[in-house]
Amino acid sequence: MKSRILFSGLYILFFNIGLNAQQALWGAPEIVSPEIHENNTVTFCLLAPDADTVKITGDFLSTEKVNTPYGSMDAPGKALLEKDEKGVWSYTSEALDPELYNYSFIVDGLSISDPANVYKIRDVASVFDIFIIGGGKADNYLVKDVPHGTVTRRWYDSPGLDMKRRITIYTPPGYESGKDKYPVLYLLHGAGGDEEAWIALGRLSQIMDNLIAQGKAKPMIVVMPNGNVTQVAAPGEGLRGFYKPQFMEPRTMNGEYEAAFTDIIKFIEANYRVKTDKRNRAIAGLSMGGFHSLHISRYYPNTFDYVGLFSAAILPNKNVSSKIYENLDETLKTQKDNGYKLYWIGMGKTDFLYESGVEYRAKLDEIGMPYEYYESEGGHIWRNWRDYLVIFAPKLFQ
Amino acid sequence: MKSRILFSGLYILFFNIGLNAQQALWGAPEIVSPEIHENNTVTFCLLAPDADTVKITGDFLSTEKVNTPYGSMDAPGKALLEKDEKGVWSYTSEALDPELYNYSFIVDGLSISDPANVYKIRDVASVFDIFIIGGGKADNYLVKDVPHGTVTRRWYDSPGLDMKRRITIYTPPGYESGKDKYPVLYLLHGAGGDEEAWIALGRLSQIMDNLIAQGKAKPMIVVMPNGNVTQVAAPGEGLRGFYKPQFMEPRTMNGEYEAAFTDIIKFIEANYRVKTDKRNRAIAGLSMGGFHSLHISRYYPNTFDYVGLFSAAILPNKNVSSKIYENLDETLKTQKDNGYKLYWIGMGKTDFLYESGVEYRAKLDEIGMPYEYYESEGGHIWRNWRDYLVIFAPKLFQ
Repeated sequence: MKSRILFSGLYILFFNIGLNAQQALWGAPEIVSPEIHENNTVTFCLLAPDADTVKITGDFLSTEKVNTPYGSMDAPGKALLEKDEKGVWSYTSEALDPELYNYSFIVDGLSISDPANVYKIRDVASVFDIFIIGGGKADNYLVKDVPHGTVTRRWYDSPGLDMKRRITIYTPPGYESGKDKYPVLYLLHGAGGDEEAWIALGRLSQIMDNLIAQGKAKPMIVVMPNGNVTQVAAPGEGLRGFYKPQFMEPRTMNGEYEAAFTDIIKFIEANYRVKTDKRNRAIAGLSMGGFHSLHISRYYPNTFDYVGLFSAAILPNKNVSSKIYENLDETLKTQKDNGYKLYWIGMGKTDFLYESGVEYRAKLDEIGMPYEYYESEGGHIWRNWRDYLVIFAPKLFQ
Repeated sequence: MKSRILFSGLYILFFNIGLNAQQALWGAPEIVSPEIHENNTVTFCLLAPDADTVKITGDFLSTEKVNTPYGSMDAPGKALLEKDEKGVWSYTSEALDPELYNYSFIVDGLSISDPANVYKIRDVASVFDIFIIGGGKADNYLVKDVPHGTVTRRWYDSPGLDMKRRITIYTPPGYESGKDKYPVLYLLHGAGGDEEAWIALGRLSQIMDNLIAQGKAKPMIVVMPNGNVTQVAAPGEGLRGFYKPQFMEPRTMNGEYEAAFTDIIKFIEANYRVKTDKRNRAIAGLSMGGFHSLHISRYYPNTFDYVGLFSAAILPNKNVSSKIYENLDETLKTQKDNGYKLYWIGMGKTDFLYESGVEYRAKLDEIGMPYEYYESEGGHIWRNWRDYLVIFAPKLFQ
């Protein structure tokens, strides 16, 4: 046998990868996009010799006002790419602050994903290209040379919802090899999200690994359940197969999820080495998950010492009747009287839920229910929720 | 507080999702693509009013010959989409056999990902849209209403490579709640792959869940390590951050991986409830992973009772000198003399490694080393490797 049976990288590439690879094989320029430069400017490239105009849109560009049937709104800005003689379009950004950014190209009016970038995340039914400018706060989002926790996708039984459900669990470094018991943060997603959202969009495992390694957060287990009661698992991971995800699943804010939440706590406390008292339980969530956290924490008013409302939706639809949503003031008072360590509220200045947050805080003031309030720039966006997690997690279980 | 603080789905969608969503908001047609019909034809749609031609390419279309600098090769076929008055291009396939398929659009010569399909998989540096035609063998690839195993991504210490490495582990239904010990399949990826490949491209967890539920495969733990010794984790999951993945990492076929493989076995046997004898260990891999399986199984010639070579690369580069690759015949004879239950070889008729397989089987015949040989249609593709897994896994630990 001779070395002719060696791998031929090109050959395999061709067979497996097909058309994208052909370009690389047959002399077209090799595209690297995005390319992050040392000064934190970023160059985006697209090989599109036949295109007339190529633009980029993304959250690293200044927003622009657009008119919609719902009034004037802010939308991510756009920038034009320039074409070189080889048909490669490119654009270089200004120096960017540390952050996880997303973007898409617009080729002759068609919004497309960057074919040279394999790092994409799904938000509801859209897939975006992402990149990270490290340094500062964004160092929390990067995989660093620190001990790493474990991320597990498994299924649990929810008698309250009469189904088996998928759940994502982060266990901190040392959990598997040790004997210690750990506190638990239940971390909930927003509408359109699922048990993958905090891992993919929230960079949960990177953030926790880094905060724990720096001694900023206590080692804890983070439990990320699916908050859509009609969905056993994230799109593509359940019995419905591959379908187009929708923004709002049915019955997500009608009390069923809150009523069945003890299934999750019981599952975790029966299957993990966790501390099972109120002092060692936290619950937090973004948007709809903030709504769930608010109601779960007062419906089970002696269960959580730590509550986090990240850009929370506050009140249920007045057309929904569920006893879970009755007696709001009384149950909040009970929660207050039972005592807790932290009731943390984060909200962006331009969040469309901002005013509801003002009203809710007024109610808490009226009841005399203590809370910590953090107001950020920006609106109802993952950028803020990652920030809130980085602020909130270190306050837990101290 | 009024219900004005209710969720406004459209509003949130707009802020979070940006431009793709605008189309949906402002009266453009809602695109569902792909749409699988009851007769297993599939319609693909793209909203691109300004495009001149839109084609689709994918592995469900007949291949076509293309001329390359490397000679004439088969490439995935193409089909033209037709445009309607709203600017929606569409194409409906013939009725398709059960399979997991991939595709891309080509818009005026530019290869793009389907913006309406969130189900994508990465193969090396390319991202493809996928869909599954269920029924028949492809029912193994779907999430069914059966007990589900657990998929864990964690990090282990490899003293042999002097690094912490990421690894993916499937534990079968009942593992976490029971006390039984399980046999272990070590399942290796090919060049350009990593510890995510068998989960994403190989549908490993769905296949194992379904085979186990049908009683076809024994409950087993499947360990999917990273076979690139210079890469601690899959692209994006390690210290190198986000970079463009390449087909062949350095030092993957120079003996280092095989030499350090006991680190993985030790880690698994120290951390999981597994049976730790030869009868309960299997090793298999595709392409480069078949190469690794061949050499690991004879280098540790009394360790595995089951070996699977899926479209395996066979021999190392003659320029590589590693004692692992010395004495091929002698070590194979030792492996034979030590005995084993199954040495399984799968190969596609049009695989570019086909001839090397012929030569290797001649060598095994010469040595008198028993093996089972399965020859399939097709070449060096994931479709075959999923098939081989479905055939191979039921033969293990019986």
